[in-house]
Amino acid sequence: MRKKPQKPRVNYLIAPNPQAPDLTRQVEGIDHTGRRGTYAVIEERPLTIFLNATEIVTAMTIGDYPEFLALGFLFNQGMLSDVSEVSAVSFDHELETVVVRTTSQTDYEEKLGKRIRTSGCALGTVFEDMFDLVATRRLPAASVRTSWLYELSRKINQTPSLYLAAGAIHGTVLCHRDSPLVYMEDVGRHNAVDKIAGWMMSNNVKPEDKILYTTGRLTSEMVLKTAMMNIPILVSRSGFTAWGVQISRQVNLTLIGRMRGRRYICLSGQDRLIADSDPKGVPEEHSRHQRRGSR
Amino acid sequence: MRKKPQKPRVNYLIAPNPQAPDLTRQVEGIDHTGRRGTYAVIEERPLTIFLNATEIVTAMTIGDYPEFLALGFLFNQGMLSDVSEVSAVSFDHELETVVVRTTSQTDYEEKLGKRIRTSGCALGTVFEDMFDLVATRRLPAASVRTSWLYELSRKINQTPSLYLAAGAIHGTVLCHRDSPLVYMEDVGRHNAVDKIAGWMMSNNVKPEDKILYTTGRLTSEMVLKTAMMNIPILVSRSGFTAWGVQISRQVNLTLIGRMRGRRYICLSGQDRLIADSDPKGVPEEHSRHQRRGSR
Repeated sequence: MRKKPQKPRVNYLIAPNPQAPDLTRQVEGIDHTGRRGTYAVIEERPLTIFLNATEIVTAMTIGDYPEFLALGFLFNQGMLSDVSEVSAVSFDHELETVVVRTTSQTDYEEKLGKRIRTSGCALGTVFEDMFDLVATRRLPAASVRTSWLYELSRKINQTPSLYLAAGAIHGTVLCHRDSPLVYMEDVGRHNAVDKIAGWMMSNNVKPEDKILYTTGRLTSEMVLKTAMMNIPILVSRSGFTAWGVQISRQVNLTLIGRMRGRRYICLSGQDRLIADSDPKGVPEEHSRHQRRGSR
Repeated sequence: MRKKPQKPRVNYLIAPNPQAPDLTRQVEGIDHTGRRGTYAVIEERPLTIFLNATEIVTAMTIGDYPEFLALGFLFNQGMLSDVSEVSAVSFDHELETVVVRTTSQTDYEEKLGKRIRTSGCALGTVFEDMFDLVATRRLPAASVRTSWLYELSRKINQTPSLYLAAGAIHGTVLCHRDSPLVYMEDVGRHNAVDKIAGWMMSNNVKPEDKILYTTGRLTSEMVLKTAMMNIPILVSRSGFTAWGVQISRQVNLTLIGRMRGRRYICLSGQDRLIADSDPKGVPEEHSRHQRRGSR
């Protein structure tokens, strides 16, 4: 339904794959004029993540990179701290499960086991653990030129993506200076960021000089995950929650939101910003890039 | 930051309350020109839901209507089927918990207990249960005039809301014909629909002649919740997932997405649509209503 975007001049390490046949489905329907048509819609599948023998969570995901998703989820929850702890990651397509095995039993299995025996779903506690882990953290010094922010937005918007092919999906992009490196998409914005974390962990990528860009809102969860990943700068097209801002200030994360065309707002860590670009010279966004289908 | 919308001619039973002092927070920051300013951002708080003595889930919520959220969540998960089972609902502001007490122990506590003892977080199972409950359901016959859809979109867009005041929030609206009745907002789109379910349950509202409108995507979760609520028509500004479409067809839910201005797409249950309106007469949306901050 949307016009093909122009080819970007970006060498991604991982780019979206809108042509992958198992990530979208063609379905029939009608439009507002009553005309029959075929529409591409995004796939959505359950994926259950195990840490050794313990079932941790079932995520609803588009289904690409299940191993990165599992590793990144466990890392961002503080259940794994390093890839060297991991002895195997096995994905079973049919059972829709991914099992992460560690060389020795982790603290978390015992902790989860105890928790689960006493009072129910573990994820509430896990969130508290994550918060405790992050609370004392101070993210590393870094700087970000405003020209990079504008360049990143432009390049990411022009990248062929599942969003442009079918809508209803979030994107998260790991960037260095003005270069997008790894662009993950998923039906859940938390999954897209977890896949980035899993990729970074698997490739021993250093986080201190990176920028994380997301199409999703800057909630407490997104901020906690970014802080767990030790990335000092988080940028979004979308808005903020108060708790997201509060945690960002606590950990000294630079938080930039509502980044569209020449506009943005920075509500935390603005000392990292270097204004080397005149916003008046930046064009407003083309309506095609307004990502209206992914809420 | 945004202009005040014009007053709508709608008598809501519950309308958003953008003036409520505890739902937004004023925070300082800078914009793209480097100018300091104060920005309204949405609150986000944890709320832990108990069913009797069993901890069920911790939701991240804006914090209004915690009792409706808890009741609606438990109803939509199939853990409660009727308000007559409920003996008390108590919200503790300080502990950020809400406890729903039932007149007798429910099946779910036993089931959850067993599940939790064996292999971890209960929510995976709960989702499967919900799917099993919905799988055999056929939603009631109904009809929807396309003029109602356009009227609803227009009225909802013009309603003063937290979205218009601060962005970064989802809305779900229970409607009858062309009248919006109950408009809930929340940082999580699933919370907004659960609050509607809790209100319906508490007020014995019949679902068969209602339309549910949401700003969020039409995922499997949204479709399952709508089917649990027995509402035959679900409308969204946003896009679809393939699983959402598939479940809708299975339960005969009318699923309308990408509804913006004169445009929409219907991918399930189009037999319920009565085209009584010429789309050419419907104006395109004003950019102010494009909900760009709530992804």
